[in-house]
Amino acid sequence: MRTGLSASEAQQMILGLTPVLRDERCATANVRGRVLAEDIVASRTLPPWDVSAMDGYAARAEDLAAASRERPLDLPVAFEIPAGAARERALEPGQSARILTGAPLPPGADLIARQEDIDRVGDRIRFYRPHPTGEHVRHAGEDLRVGETVLSSGTVLGPAELGVLASIGRSVVAVYQRPRVAVLSSGDELIEPDGAVEPGRIVSSNSYSLIAQAHEVGADPLYLGIARDRPESLEAALRAGLNGHVLVSSAGVSVGDRDYIRPVLEKLGCELFFWGVRIKPGFPLVFGRFGEDGPLVFGLPGNPVSAMVTFEQFVRPALRKMAGHRALYRPRVQAILTEALHKGAGRLHLVRVTLEAREGRYYARSTGNQSSGVLRSMARANGLLIFPADSEHLPKGSTVQVQVLDSDVLAAPDSGL
Amino acid sequence: MRTGLSASEAQQMILGLTPVLRDERCATANVRGRVLAEDIVASRTLPPWDVSAMDGYAARAEDLAAASRERPLDLPVAFEIPAGAARERALEPGQSARILTGAPLPPGADLIARQEDIDRVGDRIRFYRPHPTGEHVRHAGEDLRVGETVLSSGTVLGPAELGVLASIGRSVVAVYQRPRVAVLSSGDELIEPDGAVEPGRIVSSNSYSLIAQAHEVGADPLYLGIARDRPESLEAALRAGLNGHVLVSSAGVSVGDRDYIRPVLEKLGCELFFWGVRIKPGFPLVFGRFGEDGPLVFGLPGNPVSAMVTFEQFVRPALRKMAGHRALYRPRVQAILTEALHKGAGRLHLVRVTLEAREGRYYARSTGNQSSGVLRSMARANGLLIFPADSEHLPKGSTVQVQVLDSDVLAAPDSGL
Repeated sequence: MRTGLSASEAQQMILGLTPVLRDERCATANVRGRVLAEDIVASRTLPPWDVSAMDGYAARAEDLAAASRERPLDLPVAFEIPAGAARERALEPGQSARILTGAPLPPGADLIARQEDIDRVGDRIRFYRPHPTGEHVRHAGEDLRVGETVLSSGTVLGPAELGVLASIGRSVVAVYQRPRVAVLSSGDELIEPDGAVEPGRIVSSNSYSLIAQAHEVGADPLYLGIARDRPESLEAALRAGLNGHVLVSSAGVSVGDRDYIRPVLEKLGCELFFWGVRIKPGFPLVFGRFGEDGPLVFGLPGNPVSAMVTFEQFVRPALRKMAGHRALYRPRVQAILTEALHKGAGRLHLVRVTLEAREGRYYARSTGNQSSGVLRSMARANGLLIFPADSEHLPKGSTVQVQVLDSDVLAAPDSGL
Repeated sequence: MRTGLSASEAQQMILGLTPVLRDERCATANVRGRVLAEDIVASRTLPPWDVSAMDGYAARAEDLAAASRERPLDLPVAFEIPAGAARERALEPGQSARILTGAPLPPGADLIARQEDIDRVGDRIRFYRPHPTGEHVRHAGEDLRVGETVLSSGTVLGPAELGVLASIGRSVVAVYQRPRVAVLSSGDELIEPDGAVEPGRIVSSNSYSLIAQAHEVGADPLYLGIARDRPESLEAALRAGLNGHVLVSSAGVSVGDRDYIRPVLEKLGCELFFWGVRIKPGFPLVFGRFGEDGPLVFGLPGNPVSAMVTFEQFVRPALRKMAGHRALYRPRVQAILTEALHKGAGRLHLVRVTLEAREGRYYARSTGNQSSGVLRSMARANGLLIFPADSEHLPKGSTVQVQVLDSDVLAAPDSGL
């Protein structure tokens, strides 16, 4: 087992050992946000034929070549093509046909004159100018053609992709599985939120934050409850989490008397790859895996902020990789630091900041107390400033890198149209 | 009813008529992503007493003032304080006590010496330096104090906020209601995705995109199906949507023979505020409201891209306002245009672009065919470039404003630690 890895080494080691999960076939109605695990090939051409993009009149360009404002040209309305009609009757030279948006062009017609551009005179249509071939026509195959790949494996299925799947009648698609994440807290002092607050007891809030973080990344969390500070209790809780893809525990990973997580994991057959990452908060992170194909294990620190921040940096990218995502990390922006920050060299710090957008620039300010016990500072933060390991001073006004935890902040309050 | 509003006028009119919904009390387990509708006042002080931030030994600073590497100082271990213990026994002068992370400091103790900093010599602890008062102590109230407002009304409930609520034992909170959105398509040519593709028929994909858009914004969509191009069919479908907060229809809003939406809405008692917004795609947008307190109605154009884009610009901000959000709009970034774009003056264009992050800058490129029928171009786009109404040319290399549809794009591929 290695120790004292840099943050980057730890991320690379974790991602190197993280598999992309297998695919499963799901109803298209239930795959919003999932990642496509097959190439989708169009089984239809869309539109299947030339259709009208407007309500108006179908005609032939050659018939209208001589029309002008001074010498308008009248054509009879030979028939009408409602939306949803089949493409049956052909338009003969010298005819026009009433047509509605989405309806198929009759054979022979090659343009649509919008009704705003013509006049109806009795049962004839008056045209005032030549109309070019193709005007207001959506051509067959303009959106997609049979046999064409319309969505590639790896695509995240958002509203537009779901519309495309609907439009070609795909009601079942292959997507990557959602990672199942078992979440556990440990500590004799912990109680559930509805427990009696006796002296010495504190509420186990970590699991609630971690479960919400797992939900946000699209994983499927399972709560294992609170394990007590005895090897048997921890072992029983950990065993219950072994049928998922990832096991996340918080607390119990330091070097204290009661930090049983590591020995219990090893007893259960977990290979531990590292303990201790040169970051703050979150140094005592443990990472392991049960066998070649078994679940990954993340032993997160017990302090609420440390647990959330290490989940962000190490668990979240792994869960995104498992689920088939290509973009594994949070958005990152450059921001201007509104105050000086100092630390010792050696560990990379992730400083909770509030990020503000003003006139096309971002400004970052520390949320204040950076104690890893102060969960409220995490609630106030919408970004994590990356204070590099080797750096000791970040002057006021310097440009810094900030991970964006809440992309709402990237929307300036006045960013309507 | 007004017509020909600018995009900004339309947004302002809509938001001016959009209410913030009432609040409802929900289990904290079910409110992830919702907006808090009450100030949360701490019912507890956290930590409730001074606690140890480390595993180590509690002591009194005044006892250790003379300790040095050359002349270490030994103190007996008088007792042990496990995590979860009550704060009972006091530390007398000249004593130390074994203490675990999270355990309450005994009265009299004012610091924790980490076990890495001391040696255990028989039943005594050897200290090698003075330790300052407060070392490795998390003070009572450091996170929050009874009576303090810890989360304000209007806060979006993410993982950290859910952790804070758990930590003070709040299992029920008041949040703004989720808007219920009824979604309808209309057109005789439309079939459901599993319908038979007869000549002239096309799949109604709009509802699937719009429902996914509603889900993404946290609303609660209801699918009303496909109405046919007859007033009775439309009226029946619209009536079924009137018990929600918002009714969204697509198609039937233009000026064609079969555009019955407007007359049917008026017959049902809907006040129509405007028809037609100077944007492309999406000109024929209709907006109305049923009475003072009734649902808002958005009649979106029928072209798939127009429907999605007008939902983005006009329906989404309204749904966010209803749900209590303060940030109503998408993140917007400045990007460098990689090709020239041209249009006529008069309408604001929303150009589908792919946005790419390179070396701290964003680059925007058109997805190509901007026909509003080409849904696939919407699937390829991760941004909408705002081409202002008055502007006719955007030169290659110019700086443009882009709405970010997929914030993954803001994460450069190499943005690990």
